[in-house]
Amino acid sequence: MRIQRVARDLVATEQVAGLGFTSLQVVEDDRGNVEVATDPVGTKPGDFVFTIATSAARYAAGNAAITTDLTIGGIIDHWSEERWRS
Amino acid sequence: MRIQRVARDLVATEQVAGLGFTSLQVVEDDRGNVEVATDPVGTKPGDFVFTIATSAARYAAGNAAITTDLTIGGIIDHWSEERWRS
Amino acid sequence: MRIQRVARDLVATEQVAGLGFTSLQVVEDDRGNVEVATDPVGTKPGDFVFTIATSAARYAAGNAAITTDLTIGGIIDHWSEERWRS
Amino acid sequence: MRIQRVARDLVATEQVAGLGFTSLQVVEDDRGNVEVATDPVGTKPGDFVFTIATSAARYAAGNAAITTDLTIGGIIDHWSEERWRS
Amino acid sequence: MRIQRVARDLVATEQVAGLGFTSLQVVEDDRGNVEVATDPVGTKPGDFVFTIATSAARYAAGNAAITTDLTIGGIIDHWSEERWRS
Repeated sequence: MRIQRVARDLVATEQVAGLGFTSLQVVEDDRGNVEVATDPVGTKPGDFVFTIATSAARYAAGNAAITTDLTIGGIIDHWSEERWRS
Repeated sequence: MRIQRVARDLVATEQVAGLGFTSLQVVEDDRGNVEVATDPVGTKPGDFVFTIATSAARYAAGNAAITTDLTIGGIIDHWSEERWRS
Repeated sequence: MRIQRVARDLVATEQVAGLGFTSLQVVEDDRGNVEVATDPVGTKPGDFVFTIATSAARYAAGNAAITTDLTIGGIIDHWSEERWRS
Repeated sequence: MRIQRVARDLVATEQVAGLGFTSLQVVEDDRGNVEVATDPVGTKPGDFVFTIATSAARYAAGNAAITTDLTIGGIIDHWSEERWRS
Repeated sequence: MRIQRVARDLVATEQVAGLGFTSLQVVEDDRGNVEVATDPVGTKPGDFVFTIATSAARYAAGNAAITTDLTIGGIIDHWSEERWRS
């Protein structure tokens, strides 16, 4: 799982049915690259989170039928930008 | 999921049966790298989209028997080239 | 799915049973990196193809029991080296 | 599977139910990049481990319902920083 | 599938049960990056092999219950260091 920071939510009026009403967040890594993750946890911008990829992302979204490849797995306690690299 | 832009459609007269009649789009990222995605949404060139990879791509294509590893999940509202990097 | 070019076939006298008698091709990307793909399409060196990775590769090979992680999905019409980058 | 070193444990008070009570470790590679792995082995900081990704990570965690994409597979005997590159 | 070279075997006295008694090999790519693969073929150091990743790795290991994400698929005939890049 990777460590990313929540940047903001993402709105896509036209999307596939398989995502249902799942909240989508733009997450970024320590180099500023952005990706999109489903959010069953309820995060807010600035939260440091760990994200779950591949088939486990579907299960972590709460329902294996949700068609995601990246899901926020939790909000990390006591993380900061300096800890991104050991 | 990643954020990509639709470049143009892709034509492959000889292809595996598992893709059926699914539309294929060439999508590019913020560095100009191109990939190919199945498109159940109905996008057009220039649309900013998020794409779904790995096993979820098959389900997102509308039918788990479709043999794709990348499917367009939705068209992003209010995205532009500047937002590709936070 | 990625866009690659067929370089030549690959011969491996000792291999796992799960690949059966599937043809194997060495494919290369626009930077010259090589990988190996199963080929249910019947390609020849120089063909520009799109390749299917992860679990969909097994299904695209014609039989989910084939133990591959990369399968040639089709031969692209009208592609050339210049189009590899948009 | 990749070779990584255990840095420290990770605490996430708010997390998805699918991870249960699995221990989470921050692991780093030879370039200092960090990731998060479930730990069914019982490692301690400084241990060199190999980690298992994708769907096998779920099974390696001891229960396929555990929603992880990276699991520590074992502690490597006789490894050191110099061996990270051949 | 990727082309890698067998470097040496890997010993991990403490490891997850899911790997059983499968032989583990350290494999390296053309840049000297190392990874760990299960070996159902019986390779020796110096062999050029192709390796199978993601869910197919479990099946290629001879038993889908084996918790690996990388399995040696075969020994390549007539390969050499110069052929690693086309």
